[in-house]
Amino acid sequence: MGFGSRLTSAVLTKKNPVCVGLDPRWQQLPGSLRIDPSVHGWQATAEAYQSFCFAIIDVVAPLVPIVKPQSAFFEELGPSGVVVLERVVRYAASKGVLVILDGKRNDIGTTATAYAKAYLGSNSPFGADSLTVSPYLGRDSLDPFVERCKEADAGIFVLVKTSNPGSGFMQDLSIDGATISERVADYVQEQAIKTADAPNVYGSIGCVVGATYPEQLIAMRRRMPNAWILIPGYGAQGGSADDVKHGLDAQGLGAVVNSSRGIIFAHENPKYASAADWTRAVESATLDMIEQLR
Amino acid sequence: MGFGSRLTSAVLTKKNPVCVGLDPRWQQLPGSLRIDPSVHGWQATAEAYQSFCFAIIDVVAPLVPIVKPQSAFFEELGPSGVVVLERVVRYAASKGVLVILDGKRNDIGTTATAYAKAYLGSNSPFGADSLTVSPYLGRDSLDPFVERCKEADAGIFVLVKTSNPGSGFMQDLSIDGATISERVADYVQEQAIKTADAPNVYGSIGCVVGATYPEQLIAMRRRMPNAWILIPGYGAQGGSADDVKHGLDAQGLGAVVNSSRGIIFAHENPKYASAADWTRAVESATLDMIEQLR
Repeated sequence: MGFGSRLTSAVLTKKNPVCVGLDPRWQQLPGSLRIDPSVHGWQATAEAYQSFCFAIIDVVAPLVPIVKPQSAFFEELGPSGVVVLERVVRYAASKGVLVILDGKRNDIGTTATAYAKAYLGSNSPFGADSLTVSPYLGRDSLDPFVERCKEADAGIFVLVKTSNPGSGFMQDLSIDGATISERVADYVQEQAIKTADAPNVYGSIGCVVGATYPEQLIAMRRRMPNAWILIPGYGAQGGSADDVKHGLDAQGLGAVVNSSRGIIFAHENPKYASAADWTRAVESATLDMIEQLR
Repeated sequence: MGFGSRLTSAVLTKKNPVCVGLDPRWQQLPGSLRIDPSVHGWQATAEAYQSFCFAIIDVVAPLVPIVKPQSAFFEELGPSGVVVLERVVRYAASKGVLVILDGKRNDIGTTATAYAKAYLGSNSPFGADSLTVSPYLGRDSLDPFVERCKEADAGIFVLVKTSNPGSGFMQDLSIDGATISERVADYVQEQAIKTADAPNVYGSIGCVVGATYPEQLIAMRRRMPNAWILIPGYGAQGGSADDVKHGLDAQGLGAVVNSSRGIIFAHENPKYASAADWTRAVESATLDMIEQLR
């Protein structure tokens, strides 16, 4: 079964489109995990990130269809962090939740193939179900990822319209009636339908469209009827449930909505201050987000 | 001293602009390093990559100013490969050769900062002098890398015009008289001059322009007078010495020309078949490239 169908099944089973972003940051970890901040090194920090992410996965795996570790925060700790990243991906898989590895990888030819083989598929070294990919190098730089998705029942999410204030610098420029992001979207739709298990379902090639640009989200949903949309920017970055609803179809399928800080650092939110411990704050924040999206 | 000046000094000392690309691929390693291909796992492959890269660095460090490990080929082996990647970067530094880590990283805000902190500067976890960066997310996604370059005397090479056949899909599109790659180039020049140790020298923010598009290389050299250009695509991808000369100024500064396969797999080239061993083939191929560029 292709990744598109696996994600459909996961969203239907969990009855919500929430993606929990695993973005560990030392300064925001719960106090109980920051044993001795004055002497911690990269290795000790990496171990704390592992405990943090495992505990979150324990809480959210029964509740949500998918989680998204952010590679940058693990790479920031050097090889020790990357060792833990792989463990986090495997742990999530063992708990029955799908994984988007957010690495925004990109390169050409056989180098792109190397990235695809590194990350995509349970038999790959990192074992992720899917990966985010950046499109600046062109269609021929994306094709090797698409090929790997077919071989490994994996998926990619191509950056189309990102959630940051400066995303328009390139993405919103229009040539001959189509913006750069629309041109990327057309590639995504073309590959999404080719990788769909049936013509009227979602394929394995998806995209990223930020919650912070709701009008573009509406247009992109129409432009890519077969593509899963990963929607970042919910919560901390300003996107609301009203903003993201346009990414979803009538069945509640077609998009996953990511929240990172709002869930994983819920212990910092006064609203959850009464939780018995930080993991219960994570649980309450996750349940609240699921409810908001209903 | 900023990275731009450090690279100037290295090119003047070595009297050539050659960058040796460290792109290990199992099938092309010298036979002496492929001990038992039938049983090798990722860990064993990673160790072979380490031996391969260390031996190349031993040969080329006295000859060339800079080397460029390709992150994808190390990541392809999972965490074991990333452990070796860090060792290769440190080993190159210990031998007095500068390092471009070719990772094409990109993200927004504090996530971009995390990548910058992971890779840039000798005190960072990976310890590289410079990193390649992809610009699709906009100027605000590049700024955190620029900030880190200033703090850590490090550099970045922003993808402007890549060497692949499909690079025009986005990069060559023109809006209001400027192509997408020219718009990225203008950002690079703006930051290059700001990070230069003097107004008439090269700064720490550079770019990538492929040897396979010589006319664009000429135009880009003029458009970014303060930016180092990393030129891939020499040799195996089809770029010649005539093609790349337009990237260099009258002093032979302003660009570094990368060759990967042509040098590191020289043992496969009949021209070097008489070499005493594969490292002597690497040495001969490096000396030949230096000579071709003179």
